[in-house]
Amino acid sequence: MGAKELLQEHIAKTAVLTEKEFDYFFSHFSPISFKKGQTIVSAGDHVDCEYFVVSGCLKAFFINDEIKMYILQFAMPTWWTSDYNALYNQTTATINIDCITDAEVLCLSNSDREKLCKEFHQVEHFFRWRTNKGYIASQKRLLSFMNNNVKKRYEELLGLYPQLYNLVPKHLIAAYLGVSRETLSRLQAHK
Amino acid sequence: MGAKELLQEHIAKTAVLTEKEFDYFFSHFSPISFKKGQTIVSAGDHVDCEYFVVSGCLKAFFINDEIKMYILQFAMPTWWTSDYNALYNQTTATINIDCITDAEVLCLSNSDREKLCKEFHQVEHFFRWRTNKGYIASQKRLLSFMNNNVKKRYEELLGLYPQLYNLVPKHLIAAYLGVSRETLSRLQAHK
Repeated sequence: MGAKELLQEHIAKTAVLTEKEFDYFFSHFSPISFKKGQTIVSAGDHVDCEYFVVSGCLKAFFINDEIKMYILQFAMPTWWTSDYNALYNQTTATINIDCITDAEVLCLSNSDREKLCKEFHQVEHFFRWRTNKGYIASQKRLLSFMNNNVKKRYEELLGLYPQLYNLVPKHLIAAYLGVSRETLSRLQAHK
Repeated sequence: MGAKELLQEHIAKTAVLTEKEFDYFFSHFSPISFKKGQTIVSAGDHVDCEYFVVSGCLKAFFINDEIKMYILQFAMPTWWTSDYNALYNQTTATINIDCITDAEVLCLSNSDREKLCKEFHQVEHFFRWRTNKGYIASQKRLLSFMNNNVKKRYEELLGLYPQLYNLVPKHLIAAYLGVSRETLSRLQAHK
């Protein structure tokens, strides 16, 4: 499936746009290809865009004051990612986004998103629901951190990203869970 | 300022509604008064509504497997709160919401919110921005947890809720930060 069809199918789950409206909507996206390891957003950057993943896998991550990496999100096809705090509040990025594999994304600028939301009630509806889902996922992740039960966090991760184990090196999975690789190996042994 | 005026002023920051449209919008909210200590949502409940705080202070909290309480959010006037995962996904609540002080809220049902969003593009716009702000706050809180720097977390909390120290018992502030009361006292001594 091409990038356009993937986005169209994704949008159609929530919003009703005619073919012509979707063509116009799609004309605001720019396709970009990235190589494995390439950086999309670095902490400190100005952030202008959000990204719809067409293929490959990205990671959004944070390096804390103790130089420990935490993974906020793995972004796979049909997921959206950006540093939304930087994007909406026009501040610089606090997180980093890079490519775990080669990846294709569709890039939408902040100003085009706002313009499209204004022009089409259905686009505004789509983005409200997209953000609702992001908000809920973020709340769940926060509750996961508060609930100091690593086994449960591991099971939640498997539920959220069933294909993850074939795609992502183990040390990144440990960085998502906030545990050492040794703890991750113990969890996998007790599956 | 009455509940209606507070909500109107709050909405007007993001959305343009005529007086008549706002009256119709407001007619879908039910005012409820709660006493200090009263519970609004309990883990396990079915959740039908979200709440706009008119006066007083609520807390949204989570009790983990080790019976330790974490505070997800303090909700003060013009803040919205609910268990949004339960509300949007029609599952039972995983968090609790209760009243730190006597409180007045305006309650809006899930189905009325969706109806109003459909009827008015500007209402959909308002709720998109409301959720954007919630999403960003939630991401920031998550980064705070990942960044194991209690002093910074404490300063962020003071920035987010400057009036909090007059309103909220110290053990609840400690439960928001995820630290003991002793650690909190040390932080306050070094302000």
